[in-house]
Amino acid sequence: MAENLRVAVIGAGRMGADHIQRLHTRIHGAEVAAVIDVDLDRANAAVAGIPGARAFATPAEAYAAELDGGKVNAVVIATPGFLHEQALLEALELDLPILCEKPLTPDAESAWKIVEAEQKLGRQRIQVGFMRRFDAEYAALGGLVRSRDLGELLMLHCRHRNPDTPPGFTNEMLINDSVVHEFDVIRYLTGEEITSVQVRLGKASSKAPEGQHDPQHVLIETESGVLADVEIFVNAQFGYEVATQAAFEGGIVDIGGDGGPYVRRAGRWGGEVTPSFIERFGAAYDVEVQAWADAALRGGIGGPSAWDGYATAACCEAGVEAQRTGGKVAVVLKPKPALYAVGAEASGSDAAGVGAAGAAR
Amino acid sequence: MAENLRVAVIGAGRMGADHIQRLHTRIHGAEVAAVIDVDLDRANAAVAGIPGARAFATPAEAYAAELDGGKVNAVVIATPGFLHEQALLEALELDLPILCEKPLTPDAESAWKIVEAEQKLGRQRIQVGFMRRFDAEYAALGGLVRSRDLGELLMLHCRHRNPDTPPGFTNEMLINDSVVHEFDVIRYLTGEEITSVQVRLGKASSKAPEGQHDPQHVLIETESGVLADVEIFVNAQFGYEVATQAAFEGGIVDIGGDGGPYVRRAGRWGGEVTPSFIERFGAAYDVEVQAWADAALRGGIGGPSAWDGYATAACCEAGVEAQRTGGKVAVVLKPKPALYAVGAEASGSDAAGVGAAGAAR
Amino acid sequence: MAENLRVAVIGAGRMGADHIQRLHTRIHGAEVAAVIDVDLDRANAAVAGIPGARAFATPAEAYAAELDGGKVNAVVIATPGFLHEQALLEALELDLPILCEKPLTPDAESAWKIVEAEQKLGRQRIQVGFMRRFDAEYAALGGLVRSRDLGELLMLHCRHRNPDTPPGFTNEMLINDSVVHEFDVIRYLTGEEITSVQVRLGKASSKAPEGQHDPQHVLIETESGVLADVEIFVNAQFGYEVATQAAFEGGIVDIGGDGGPYVRRAGRWGGEVTPSFIERFGAAYDVEVQAWADAALRGGIGGPSAWDGYATAACCEAGVEAQRTGGKVAVVLKPKPALYAVGAEASGSDAAGVGAAGAAR
Amino acid sequence: MAENLRVAVIGAGRMGADHIQRLHTRIHGAEVAAVIDVDLDRANAAVAGIPGARAFATPAEAYAAELDGGKVNAVVIATPGFLHEQALLEALELDLPILCEKPLTPDAESAWKIVEAEQKLGRQRIQVGFMRRFDAEYAALGGLVRSRDLGELLMLHCRHRNPDTPPGFTNEMLINDSVVHEFDVIRYLTGEEITSVQVRLGKASSKAPEGQHDPQHVLIETESGVLADVEIFVNAQFGYEVATQAAFEGGIVDIGGDGGPYVRRAGRWGGEVTPSFIERFGAAYDVEVQAWADAALRGGIGGPSAWDGYATAACCEAGVEAQRTGGKVAVVLKPKPALYAVGAEASGSDAAGVGAAGAAR
Repeated sequence: MAENLRVAVIGAGRMGADHIQRLHTRIHGAEVAAVIDVDLDRANAAVAGIPGARAFATPAEAYAAELDGGKVNAVVIATPGFLHEQALLEALELDLPILCEKPLTPDAESAWKIVEAEQKLGRQRIQVGFMRRFDAEYAALGGLVRSRDLGELLMLHCRHRNPDTPPGFTNEMLINDSVVHEFDVIRYLTGEEITSVQVRLGKASSKAPEGQHDPQHVLIETESGVLADVEIFVNAQFGYEVATQAAFEGGIVDIGGDGGPYVRRAGRWGGEVTPSFIERFGAAYDVEVQAWADAALRGGIGGPSAWDGYATAACCEAGVEAQRTGGKVAVVLKPKPALYAVGAEASGSDAAGVGAAGAAR
Repeated sequence: MAENLRVAVIGAGRMGADHIQRLHTRIHGAEVAAVIDVDLDRANAAVAGIPGARAFATPAEAYAAELDGGKVNAVVIATPGFLHEQALLEALELDLPILCEKPLTPDAESAWKIVEAEQKLGRQRIQVGFMRRFDAEYAALGGLVRSRDLGELLMLHCRHRNPDTPPGFTNEMLINDSVVHEFDVIRYLTGEEITSVQVRLGKASSKAPEGQHDPQHVLIETESGVLADVEIFVNAQFGYEVATQAAFEGGIVDIGGDGGPYVRRAGRWGGEVTPSFIERFGAAYDVEVQAWADAALRGGIGGPSAWDGYATAACCEAGVEAQRTGGKVAVVLKPKPALYAVGAEASGSDAAGVGAAGAAR
Repeated sequence: MAENLRVAVIGAGRMGADHIQRLHTRIHGAEVAAVIDVDLDRANAAVAGIPGARAFATPAEAYAAELDGGKVNAVVIATPGFLHEQALLEALELDLPILCEKPLTPDAESAWKIVEAEQKLGRQRIQVGFMRRFDAEYAALGGLVRSRDLGELLMLHCRHRNPDTPPGFTNEMLINDSVVHEFDVIRYLTGEEITSVQVRLGKASSKAPEGQHDPQHVLIETESGVLADVEIFVNAQFGYEVATQAAFEGGIVDIGGDGGPYVRRAGRWGGEVTPSFIERFGAAYDVEVQAWADAALRGGIGGPSAWDGYATAACCEAGVEAQRTGGKVAVVLKPKPALYAVGAEASGSDAAGVGAAGAAR
Repeated sequence: MAENLRVAVIGAGRMGADHIQRLHTRIHGAEVAAVIDVDLDRANAAVAGIPGARAFATPAEAYAAELDGGKVNAVVIATPGFLHEQALLEALELDLPILCEKPLTPDAESAWKIVEAEQKLGRQRIQVGFMRRFDAEYAALGGLVRSRDLGELLMLHCRHRNPDTPPGFTNEMLINDSVVHEFDVIRYLTGEEITSVQVRLGKASSKAPEGQHDPQHVLIETESGVLADVEIFVNAQFGYEVATQAAFEGGIVDIGGDGGPYVRRAGRWGGEVTPSFIERFGAAYDVEVQAWADAALRGGIGGPSAWDGYATAACCEAGVEAQRTGGKVAVVLKPKPALYAVGAEASGSDAAGVGAAGAAR
């Protein structure tokens, strides 16, 4: 039978632990071979129930080790974003397939360095964890845009609401950690780059912590003039909600509606709001990681590329400046390298560019 | 300008009071001229804010009185059902247009007497208060059946749920007061008479009072073999719900879904369940009474006829027997008098028979 | 019995004809006494089936005429907006209760003249036809805001979509005829005045006629900083939709969802989109006109005042300038006269100011 | 790393091919080692893209063969039901873990033989493919029943609709192939055995083929008196739908509602109906097979047992007799062997009995 991916997961926090369980119990063709965490106790706890998996304090040690079935041959990066740059460069050095949780890196300059390093390598090795492209409804909406069944897409109204935020969640993190997903979604749905970002600060919720202005209303434009807006509201109390309404020339499409059992009780009809992104996008994560594993075994990527990571980093920088100035801030990108051109699949990737990932489903 | 209806409302209880307010504030072309109640205090309270309206202890006194604008010239009967027979006969005697709350009378034999009295009079004067025919969704479903857009109607699944019941609500009342509406709806939607009734008694709710078996599952057949079933559940706690699902050859139609503002809060999505029939069918009552007033001013009726009252009374008798025996009980009707034939509109009525009322909207 | 309103309806076009039918068949306590239209044939057609009603070419003739039951004692203005000013002044001169379709007048300056004339009269006689305040869902949302059950209202996302536009519908009319309703709704829901308007013009639909940029995205702020945005899309093809999503500190509320029978057929689930404002707000118009008639009989108004007409006219002016400039345009109002203060009900009005109308339901 | 299941899939038709893809691309810890089909070409086609997998004409050959990684060590049976008995006995003989598509066998007598054979073996090896227990909404409803949050479950209204049927789909197959799932669901949700079945035949669809009476209304009772009814409608044209409404003492719960993107276009709101069971229950099949694979690697089963297969076979026999007679037919079961008692998990199974499977999720 085919050789499995022997994956090193870097970072055993919430997101890392989730990926470890996924790889260990649900992803076909992949096994957790190593877990790396500076907190070695946390790494040891993470491998406890996984036969053959070992814990390490650094990626270098994991890459060097002889494990059951051979050396590590793939990497999942799930550390905080500011640690991504080094981990990516190390893994690229070894020419390993990489699934890197978003953001690629926290700013456009460092993201561009990664893009350059991958170009030097000459093939795409990095897939970025924008998992919404693997959500069935986002994929269906993307398909509708590309089919032109409803004519041209004209506007996108996005909602991104969390029940609350962990301590230390700053104004900038509203953009860098939350709206970043919307930046990618808007690029994915339109197949275009974002050209400007503006942020409106109005009445703030009394539930927001000191120093955080919440909610905010983010205004976005794309190359062809599609107008998008995002309500980002991270202390929305009621639960988790990520939804998009698309206005086409010939119709309106909503995704992200509530689901689950429909209950009538005690004078109310309805159901349960999704409590967090884990429940909302759990299935999308599974599809994403399976797509990555399948592509990695064939030598390519199966989703958003390092270019997508770079372009969204540039949007985030503009967004944070827009928060500060109140004005419209242009997003300026370097020219897109040929490696990431749509149609660059000859290099071995399944889904190299904006708008192409949905086809993988 | 045209003369108004000067209405005598018989019965100033919950339903009567509701009709009094409706006639006094919302129905064009009608005024409350008299309120009749054996409890004269209640009648006096009901007319308190209505200029020109007077209270009486008996219909005879009200009919005899000279009121502002002239004598009473129309009647709304809103007393308990067992008092309907006499009130109907008295009003027919005077050839007054009558809107009679359901049931026409409590049993088929007395209902038939009313039908005979009206036949003797030679024209339809009695409209029965099956107001669901005036609900926009029931009317739309009726229209779909008649249009045959979805082919033949094959099955009807009906739900009739109340939060709880007043003291003294018996097993028989489940049929006579609640399922009676479903009998009429099934006749209205199919345009056919009901041929048999069966009642299944299963596990009962601990919320049901002593002596009441609740919920019950009622099985109904019509002339052409349409199978209907009704869940009647009168201590359903959560609120009020009346809904129907219709299975056609070419599609499925649901009416009676929940509505109102859609709220996400505290981990739940949804809205408020309608608390009672007043809120659920308030608009239908307005449309019903306006249709009756408009028709009465022209000398006819604008909704379900005395025949509809008789036929549903026969269904109720069968239903109560079916509760007792557990078997399938046939519904046998006398031949339908020509006065109630569809197409009998020459006699002045807008909607003489089964299936015709919807056209009035 | 109480004397009815004998209403002169000025303008027998689409909106006027609709009000004539409403007054003639459904509004209790009011009759159509006169219809005025420069096109006397159209006026004659409108009164054809209404006993006692007469047609006139000018309001002056109608006011002078002796009709069945006496002279005209109330006015409904349903002409195009540019004709409102004169009609309003004439009717104020006679101290008649007036229901004036929106807009009060087409610009803030002329609207202010009406406000001044009414002040001189010393009591509120003018109710403006912002009927959304009488829609059950808007009223419920307004109630939720005022109750503070969900904490403070923070953002409003409004959608206003029409299937298409009549010939000659200009860019300015998107604001003056359509967004004007949203201006009133935002004022009604927040109980605050609007302080600025901005308009985003992005990708336009190929279905929009020459010279019209459609859709547009309108950004609105209120006194306390509530951020609202309106997608106005008047060639949206699919049907008519007016919906609002409100983000509160403690939850999210949507109104304006689709309804009606739920049908599964031919591979699709769903129902029919409302075709136009007539179906969407028909019930609200009935409630509005009944509230006006009830209040007029008692000498006051039962809904939005001339001040509301003036304030929205000022918003429209700012909106049209914002379309042209792309920048944020401040809305500056003259001080609010005491006549329109909330609590000015001593002057006889039921609902004198912003936010109060809902209470009338 | 842990040894994988090397699965022999018996039957390479529609269901078999679906399981082969699932095992090959999505199930962690399992590989397709062999495909068996009397049509060897079909078996060869099925293994074409699967490295290491081989095609065989009989199970015996597959079990005997030395394959990559060793012999077959698990079996999935996906042949037509009448071939199950022999395949089951052969696999039990070799003490292999078995996932057997429903039905266990086509009748109660042969199903009982399987139960006896498994008892002789002394441990549960057979899991039956009632995959609805692994659907998130059925599992949530099952959880609600067991939690008693809404009090006692009183009634179940089930809908099972297919767009059309393949040639040769008989009246008996409505029960044996379709209602059989509802029998299992009712047993799963109530945690009780079914005690009687009755079938109502009313008006039939003109879309039903010669000899098939469609739709039918099936009435079911359980040990404690829960009343269930099933509309089975296999030529319903509009699409595929499986839905259940549960009436509890304290509320009503619906599962199986429509989902996906919400589209407004061309005068309609709504979305796409699920076209078939593949889309409706695809995720449930994945969860089911993963649960089986996980349990099989530990030596047990992870879902419905042979007893569940036997009990539903007895219900089907009663259902077919009820179709013929029109009367209520009792379901009589042999005493439940200790091997299948809830709490028999010591024998190594994860989910041995009625009602327990949901806990596996």
